Amino acid sequence: MKLKVKILKFLAGRPIAVLNNSTANHINVHVGERITLSKYADSLVSIVDVSKDLIGKEEIAVSQEIIEALNIKEDDEVEVSLATKPQSTFYIKKKMDGGVLTKEEIYSIIKDIVDNALTEAETAYFVAAVYKNKMSNTETENLISAMVSVGKRLSFDGIVVDKHSIGGIAANRTTPIVVSICAAAGLTMPKTSSRAITSAAGTADVIESISKVEFNTEELKAIVKKTGACMAWNGILGLSPADDKLIQTERILALDPEAQLLASVLSKKIAVGSKHVLIDIPFGTSAKVSKEKAQELKKKFEYFGKRFGLNLRCVLTNGEQPIGNGIGPLLEIRDVIKVLKQEKDSPKDLEEKALFLAGQIIELCGKTKKEKGLELAREILKSGKASKKFYEIIEAQKGSVPTIAEIDKKLGSHKKNILAEKNFKISQIDNKKINLLASVAGSPMDKGSGLYLYYRIGDKVKKGDKILTIYSDSKTRLENALELYEKFNPLI
Amino acid sequence: MKLKVKILKFLAGRPIAVLNNSTANHINVHVGERITLSKYADSLVSIVDVSKDLIGKEEIAVSQEIIEALNIKEDDEVEVSLATKPQSTFYIKKKMDGGVLTKEEIYSIIKDIVDNALTEAETAYFVAAVYKNKMSNTETENLISAMVSVGKRLSFDGIVVDKHSIGGIAANRTTPIVVSICAAAGLTMPKTSSRAITSAAGTADVIESISKVEFNTEELKAIVKKTGACMAWNGILGLSPADDKLIQTERILALDPEAQLLASVLSKKIAVGSKHVLIDIPFGTSAKVSKEKAQELKKKFEYFGKRFGLNLRCVLTNGEQPIGNGIGPLLEIRDVIKVLKQEKDSPKDLEEKALFLAGQIIELCGKTKKEKGLELAREILKSGKASKKFYEIIEAQKGSVPTIAEIDKKLGSHKKNILAEKNFKISQIDNKKINLLASVAGSPMDKGSGLYLYYRIGDKVKKGDKILTIYSDSKTRLENALELYEKFNPLI
Repeated sequence: MKLKVKILKFLAGRPIAVLNNSTANHINVHVGERITLSKYADSLVSIVDVSKDLIGKEEIAVSQEIIEALNIKEDDEVEVSLATKPQSTFYIKKKMDGGVLTKEEIYSIIKDIVDNALTEAETAYFVAAVYKNKMSNTETENLISAMVSVGKRLSFDGIVVDKHSIGGIAANRTTPIVVSICAAAGLTMPKTSSRAITSAAGTADVIESISKVEFNTEELKAIVKKTGACMAWNGILGLSPADDKLIQTERILALDPEAQLLASVLSKKIAVGSKHVLIDIPFGTSAKVSKEKAQELKKKFEYFGKRFGLNLRCVLTNGEQPIGNGIGPLLEIRDVIKVLKQEKDSPKDLEEKALFLAGQIIELCGKTKKEKGLELAREILKSGKASKKFYEIIEAQKGSVPTIAEIDKKLGSHKKNILAEKNFKISQIDNKKINLLASVAGSPMDKGSGLYLYYRIGDKVKKGDKILTIYSDSKTRLENALELYEKFNPLI
Repeated sequence: MKLKVKILKFLAGRPIAVLNNSTANHINVHVGERITLSKYADSLVSIVDVSKDLIGKEEIAVSQEIIEALNIKEDDEVEVSLATKPQSTFYIKKKMDGGVLTKEEIYSIIKDIVDNALTEAETAYFVAAVYKNKMSNTETENLISAMVSVGKRLSFDGIVVDKHSIGGIAANRTTPIVVSICAAAGLTMPKTSSRAITSAAGTADVIESISKVEFNTEELKAIVKKTGACMAWNGILGLSPADDKLIQTERILALDPEAQLLASVLSKKIAVGSKHVLIDIPFGTSAKVSKEKAQELKKKFEYFGKRFGLNLRCVLTNGEQPIGNGIGPLLEIRDVIKVLKQEKDSPKDLEEKALFLAGQIIELCGKTKKEKGLELAREILKSGKASKKFYEIIEAQKGSVPTIAEIDKKLGSHKKNILAEKNFKISQIDNKKINLLASVAGSPMDKGSGLYLYYRIGDKVKKGDKILTIYSDSKTRLENALELYEKFNPLI
């Protein structure tokens, strides 16, 4: 049927058309389904939204994407009809019913996700199907290839190394230290990181408190060329656009199907041209995975790493408690700077873990002999070379490294010390609870908010000792965090 | 953070806000997630869409629902922050992980679906979870109660009867005949039906070819009071609004979880105040269910019918092939009128099935003794009382019953007879293929399009005999249908 075009000024992201609900009934299309719009020889498929009274029966409101694709203007007439479903929806149904997907079927789903041809609900069905029915090794391998094939690929000179942590541990901000040590050792480390997904802050959120993190690929290449490394946000680089969309859908229920976790990490490492890749898998009661699960995951990472020609190593690390004292962007960058500058009160657990990881990378790429990596990493840190490299990278990213005193001034203006109510020995510090508490205080949105932890598991605390400080930019959020603390008891 | 309001003119259905993607990153919110908007003491939660360049960093574009709820105008400032997920998303995750939901958890999910508090993706996750992990009897019972509790309830005087077919059979338009017979027998039959879901047309689509089918509850009550029955579309009555939304989500992948099928049918029967309910379960190779599955379903319907105090009976009927000759709104109503007027060339299979179902209902409510229902139904049909009642109902629904000649004139202007290419005995007529063929020809959107079948399974056909006629309003759609016919061979 023919309908008159009304221009929808603001909506974007994918073609969207709004029909009067009586018109929608006539065409037999429902919210979230698709129609084909055509004008002369041009046509495109759009998702439908339905409105009762904001648009007439003879009209169709269309988003900018449609205006541009069909080259139409207000009050033009377009031909509208029910569109058929993309073929990939049938493959999603197949997976939902326990079928095994072929290479072509997986490519078709991934391509349609990137092209916005699938709706949020359809993408959710795909995630649910993979979550429930898992993927075989062959399917996972095809998923990784498909994800790489729809994204951009970069390449860098030199010995290109990378690291990734599967996350879940509060603070644990080793990346800036590891990157600085490795780059100072002469390796190329084009590190891209996510923002907070399940934790209180991601590396991108933390670095953003002192420099830019959003770059296009040209800018990124220039930074790496100049300094040997970068610490950028992976969200706008388009390295694995299918993964970016799948992660959005997974976040909704905090689902993390294993095949997608593997594909997410590996597709980004392949896209960025990394050759030597270290994967950190922290395990523990309040970590993402148990020791058993960590061992399984290690095998899978190594298997797929080999399939894609990566020199990949997994390390299983203790994830029983947060690593470092600060949780929240500025509180974490303060810990990082203290370690790099070798300040007396720097968090030793963070330093040791960063040295261990950097040492592993140095050995993995053959820069030193076996068991000599840690030694070299420590030497680079102690000598001040890592600190110097960190300043270089931050400057190349149009930022500047603040002093500890400058950071202290920027911490949340509302703060509250939590005191021990009795003498006790700390037996548990729950990562998930600590992360949630820091989020409620305002992290990562408000850079100066978060927590400061004074103790570790095994430490003895006396009644009245300061065990925790909560920082927030807002009085209300501080109160919310305190209320949650009472309810939660993240530290016992 | 504070943002300046830009009014989004057309979007509707639920509160939607569009943020600049840099602002979205800052708040750490992604497409499809939620923000809280507040102005003075008022606040509401909205789903977020993100735009790169159509809206500024300091701005937020909001839909009419938000304008009204917060009583704001263009360029007003609103406070915007990340909203927490509804509690029901955690219950959906629980079901996804194989957990058993409590009564309160099911109510919370259903309430949030109806209140638009869940996104399409979240609702899809719920459907997927129930599809994969099924529901226990207790869960299903709670699902039915929850669906009834969020909808409207009607009540009618007299002996209130109802019927439902689980569908899947092409044509099979018994409802208008059964309703006319039962109402003529003095029963009250407030029948509400869906539009096409998996078939080429739903009862609502068919009746709409000769009268109105969209009524509010007051109009519906008046029609039933006057004629003892109605044949209305259930979509706008709000009898089971949760089911209406779940069906939209299920359609996307044509998922039909058993618990939701049971809840969908029963919640609507309970809401409309039916006491005596007949469920028709057609089984067969190309039907929705096998005989075995039909028997299981029968047990479940009877179990839950009893739990909700319904006098419910299930009949298993032969669903091996289409019932009636016409497939498509006007082609089906022509068959119905031929049966009601007892024309010589009326489809006898449709007549016999309608009489059987009407007879069962008449016995079920105690109007006649056992095994006397069919007799009374036949008498009412033969005597012309059913036909008279049908005219009454259609008139009350602001329509008029056309003559057969009038219908013939309205059938698709493009038609094509399919001739047998050899002598053969028909062994199969595939319901799914026949339905799809009629859809491609334009049913139910174009009321005059569809198919006409000349034979039944077991009939002998000679080379050159007309076996099928395809009707369409459009030359292109007729060609598409012919192409599909060649590929498909729905009749062998």
